[in-house]
Amino acid sequence: MKALSWHAPYDVRVSDDVPVPALEGPRDAVVRVVRSAVCGTDLHPYRGEIAGFTPGTVTGHEFTGVVEECGSGVHGLRPGDRVVASDVIACGRCWYCRQGWHYQCEQVGLFGYDTVVGRTAVAGGHAEYVRVPFADTVLSPVPDDVTDEQALFIGDILATGYTCAERGEVAPGDVVAVIGCGPVGLMAMKSAQLMGASRVLAVDPVASRRDLASVHGGTPLEPGDDLAERVRALTDGRGADVVLEAVGVDAALLSSLEIVRPRGTVSAAGAHASQAMPMPTGLAFGKELTLRFAVGDPIAVRDRLMRVVREGRIDPTFVISHRLPLAEAEEGFRLFDSGRATKVVLVP
Amino acid sequence: MKALSWHAPYDVRVSDDVPVPALEGPRDAVVRVVRSAVCGTDLHPYRGEIAGFTPGTVTGHEFTGVVEECGSGVHGLRPGDRVVASDVIACGRCWYCRQGWHYQCEQVGLFGYDTVVGRTAVAGGHAEYVRVPFADTVLSPVPDDVTDEQALFIGDILATGYTCAERGEVAPGDVVAVIGCGPVGLMAMKSAQLMGASRVLAVDPVASRRDLASVHGGTPLEPGDDLAERVRALTDGRGADVVLEAVGVDAALLSSLEIVRPRGTVSAAGAHASQAMPMPTGLAFGKELTLRFAVGDPIAVRDRLMRVVREGRIDPTFVISHRLPLAEAEEGFRLFDSGRATKVVLVP
Amino acid sequence: MKALSWHAPYDVRVSDDVPVPALEGPRDAVVRVVRSAVCGTDLHPYRGEIAGFTPGTVTGHEFTGVVEECGSGVHGLRPGDRVVASDVIACGRCWYCRQGWHYQCEQVGLFGYDTVVGRTAVAGGHAEYVRVPFADTVLSPVPDDVTDEQALFIGDILATGYTCAERGEVAPGDVVAVIGCGPVGLMAMKSAQLMGASRVLAVDPVASRRDLASVHGGTPLEPGDDLAERVRALTDGRGADVVLEAVGVDAALLSSLEIVRPRGTVSAAGAHASQAMPMPTGLAFGKELTLRFAVGDPIAVRDRLMRVVREGRIDPTFVISHRLPLAEAEEGFRLFDSGRATKVVLVP
Amino acid sequence: MKALSWHAPYDVRVSDDVPVPALEGPRDAVVRVVRSAVCGTDLHPYRGEIAGFTPGTVTGHEFTGVVEECGSGVHGLRPGDRVVASDVIACGRCWYCRQGWHYQCEQVGLFGYDTVVGRTAVAGGHAEYVRVPFADTVLSPVPDDVTDEQALFIGDILATGYTCAERGEVAPGDVVAVIGCGPVGLMAMKSAQLMGASRVLAVDPVASRRDLASVHGGTPLEPGDDLAERVRALTDGRGADVVLEAVGVDAALLSSLEIVRPRGTVSAAGAHASQAMPMPTGLAFGKELTLRFAVGDPIAVRDRLMRVVREGRIDPTFVISHRLPLAEAEEGFRLFDSGRATKVVLVP
Repeated sequence: MKALSWHAPYDVRVSDDVPVPALEGPRDAVVRVVRSAVCGTDLHPYRGEIAGFTPGTVTGHEFTGVVEECGSGVHGLRPGDRVVASDVIACGRCWYCRQGWHYQCEQVGLFGYDTVVGRTAVAGGHAEYVRVPFADTVLSPVPDDVTDEQALFIGDILATGYTCAERGEVAPGDVVAVIGCGPVGLMAMKSAQLMGASRVLAVDPVASRRDLASVHGGTPLEPGDDLAERVRALTDGRGADVVLEAVGVDAALLSSLEIVRPRGTVSAAGAHASQAMPMPTGLAFGKELTLRFAVGDPIAVRDRLMRVVREGRIDPTFVISHRLPLAEAEEGFRLFDSGRATKVVLVP
Repeated sequence: MKALSWHAPYDVRVSDDVPVPALEGPRDAVVRVVRSAVCGTDLHPYRGEIAGFTPGTVTGHEFTGVVEECGSGVHGLRPGDRVVASDVIACGRCWYCRQGWHYQCEQVGLFGYDTVVGRTAVAGGHAEYVRVPFADTVLSPVPDDVTDEQALFIGDILATGYTCAERGEVAPGDVVAVIGCGPVGLMAMKSAQLMGASRVLAVDPVASRRDLASVHGGTPLEPGDDLAERVRALTDGRGADVVLEAVGVDAALLSSLEIVRPRGTVSAAGAHASQAMPMPTGLAFGKELTLRFAVGDPIAVRDRLMRVVREGRIDPTFVISHRLPLAEAEEGFRLFDSGRATKVVLVP
Repeated sequence: MKALSWHAPYDVRVSDDVPVPALEGPRDAVVRVVRSAVCGTDLHPYRGEIAGFTPGTVTGHEFTGVVEECGSGVHGLRPGDRVVASDVIACGRCWYCRQGWHYQCEQVGLFGYDTVVGRTAVAGGHAEYVRVPFADTVLSPVPDDVTDEQALFIGDILATGYTCAERGEVAPGDVVAVIGCGPVGLMAMKSAQLMGASRVLAVDPVASRRDLASVHGGTPLEPGDDLAERVRALTDGRGADVVLEAVGVDAALLSSLEIVRPRGTVSAAGAHASQAMPMPTGLAFGKELTLRFAVGDPIAVRDRLMRVVREGRIDPTFVISHRLPLAEAEEGFRLFDSGRATKVVLVP
Repeated sequence: MKALSWHAPYDVRVSDDVPVPALEGPRDAVVRVVRSAVCGTDLHPYRGEIAGFTPGTVTGHEFTGVVEECGSGVHGLRPGDRVVASDVIACGRCWYCRQGWHYQCEQVGLFGYDTVVGRTAVAGGHAEYVRVPFADTVLSPVPDDVTDEQALFIGDILATGYTCAERGEVAPGDVVAVIGCGPVGLMAMKSAQLMGASRVLAVDPVASRRDLASVHGGTPLEPGDDLAERVRALTDGRGADVVLEAVGVDAALLSSLEIVRPRGTVSAAGAHASQAMPMPTGLAFGKELTLRFAVGDPIAVRDRLMRVVREGRIDPTFVISHRLPLAEAEEGFRLFDSGRATKVVLVP
């Protein structure tokens, strides 16, 4: 089958001779991919930021499609069902899964991401077919009145933005700041609006991203030394009630701690990886802050989000800037890496 | 001054010689009324449903205006401040007020409602001036960018609809049914939408009310024996996640218990007064329901609502069907009582 | 095998020739019973209150034991594992189960209770062996340091009392009233204490039950016309913050509405079955009450409760008044029905 | 009057000629002190850790006593009332106070702490008399059946430990680790037990503190490199559900992040003051942690705590190791500073 594989930094290649995956266990399903997407997370191996990433890995953890085949232990799904996969692979049965915390699953994994998350590599969705472990937990049926592209984002970026806003405890009337207006930040913004935020401050250094946020109801703001001051000017001198951080670098998180009001919450969906961010604990204690880290959990939130999308409260497809055939996926990575694309969707 | 007084059932009269109220204690303020409104609650004495209502009572508990004079013990307010009054009068200091439950205040009252609520009658807002007890608790400043008519509804119906939705624990994605699409029901609908309801089912026997709900995003439904069935058909067979009841009669509440899904919540903002509603406890136990009674609490929720209105997330003025000079308030009562008006605003 | 069967009102019989159950499906397990108990719920068919109860039904929904055999689809359990069963049978997979609401499961059942709950009868635990459907959801492993009799109650009465207190939203410092000091009421009392209640008022007409409650930290109170007054005298004039109702008849629930304070919560774990309890909605609205019905959900709460029991925070075995061989189960029913026993445990 | 004043590091002195304070505004009260205490916070100026601390400052923010005189604007208090003061001074009226967040009050202060917190110095409670601003907010009546020494701790350390546990969201059955078993840590432990923790792990390098924790139900643990491993061994391999940090230095907070389980909460009541704690954001993100800073808020929690103490659920006086006349307060500071005293109470 056709699939995109990672070979080395900046070297991803589509080939036609990747073997079609087969069921490996009773809880597996094989899904024929209808749409997949390139995620910011995919850029880490692309840019060579992940040492030891295995050459030949089929990438991609955002995909939607049709069930082709099910193992004997998969309940509730049948060949022909339209489904969207959770980017996070979870068993659905361990203590953590029973709490609804799938990213902490004892058998957690991430499609197309080698063993960076979890111990077992699972080939990804930038392909014509994908093997899905724990299929009845990882896959979710898609109703007829939700399109493939709408469903696609419930498997990752919309779920991540929503999880971020939910863990930020956005309440009606809140002024919410979103740091970083990439796809996840934009979904966090939409989620905050859904939860009743009176205003969302959309902070990003890139004008085109601020513009997109603005079109969708955000108040665009450039980062800068005086950001806290500007935020206070918009919030009766207090600061943002909630900050949703969607960048994942120290500077963004430190800025979040500055602009949030006393007793506020910073919810960080950015994939932080620092070992020693210089944390101002005096500031955080004086303001009695809550700092919460939020990995998107599509399995936990997809039922709600499917209803939200179905009824038109959020249409996440507005972030799509490019649709390319899977055969042109290499170009898709280049576009996304260069910042020229907001979101690239691949069509097998 | 000019004011409307209740004299007998269906006999309310505007006169010009009602004495202008004066400060009676250090926590009082006198407010010059800029807008007031007729509320469904006012119809109870109008229709003669309240035995012993005192003739001569100046009615009206929805009003906004300008502070004319303040007692020495009123902090945070000055003559000239634009303000909206809470319909509920509360001291702000007793155990209940400290919990944020102002309707349970040990000195609770309701403007223009004699001693139906609380032990002390306080003249109402269908007048040019009103004396406001506990002014720093009862009054709230209105920002420049909120109009008088927008603020007006934060003092009662918007706060009531919002409190109803809040106590109904509406969550993003929920399907919410609103029983009764009068002004409070419409505000409950708007509040449920603000909180992320994927869909609001707007139930009312009157076509024009359903139409108004529909224009504002509700799915109109007629009541009827098969209502529960129709609701289940719209909700994957389960029933509404939350029901917001805004009528206040047994039939409406019993219907709510029917159409809510198992483990759902019925939040009743209708002013129930039955001593023996025939409650189906077997049904409620089998479905593990929550039934919650919700009196609107403007003091508790007005900060949030002011932000929501200010940023345009909700504009409550859409319910206004008539604006009349205070001199024509008698006609206003007739219009509202007859069902020809959705909401009547009076201009002194 | 030996088992107790219901034949007619007041006619239950132990016989030795009931067939040992076998696996019927891949998610079944067969459990060898080590301890079972007689529950108040069992008294309904015993007393002939349930029309059409099927003669020959093996009763009993409280039991703990050892896994004898597992179906191929049962994960996480092995023959030899010590387990406690949830009284509620649930599939673990449907929409309701995914929300954690197992009593609403689309395939719900209750051991030994014919088809009173759900559509499929499943033989009960007053027997040497029981077939357990959906075994990996219904059964829970028992740690070595929890005894069989401690575990036994996590499968029903402790879980029910705890669920009742949890849904009552007991908070630290609350004064909690428990209506009915039978086994479930006593477990509700213990749960309220665990959650930090400053005081538990234990209301029961039977002196011996009040005494038992008193020994375990409750303040004993007799019911009566002046109960509300006596409760207010103990609560600064306000009423109980939370009422946990564990009787299941109209009078008990109506009394709960009287004695709870304004803005309080009544959580009813009693198995209500009225079609027309005369509900005072005027009172409930004026006090802005929450009324919540709570069916015990062992599957949802057993992880927490196992830890609580293991660390000695609650030892539920204090309610055991009688231990009898299974062969003497008929006497066990007589003792319990007559009120001479608090809780009867059966040993196969 | 007699009072203790700070003059220089390690130089605090009792003198008899400090002027008795007088009312300065209408919301002031003067309290005759019956008991005060030395708090860990007092050691910062004592040890010279606070630059610019004003010589002559009367110290002490933990005190209970009797109202001597009230300003005209103080409601609800009368001379002769037994009261306990909140250590935090707050106006009770600003936006933050209305949210119940008194430490963020626009006029916040701390008794006897110069202008370290807030902009206005207020003389403290290591004295015979204290002037209390915003008296009706800062003071709370003490019921007859609560002793002076019990009430004393509701004004600071018990409230701080409780706030820490509350913001840690301790739930029934949780395993809670307390880092630092000084007075605040011990109160956090008691609060966690009150909230239903199945076990509290009490971590402290000092054997006598661990012993005291152990006597009161904690599981004593020494800190050390393998602490996380030992905690996991006690928690089914997961880590503590909640960590309550009561030290206030980087190492303690970093250790907390290590020993908390994935999806757990670290609530820090220690007075952190670092500008650059080396925060492992990769660890925190991977575990999806919540980190929350918790300043004690006696005003917010004292109603509950008074009930808890009154009913004997917690008796905070067990931490008292020394009772000294105010005249010997200098010795009290020496004892406490040297670690020979757990808690020193001063009797004027």
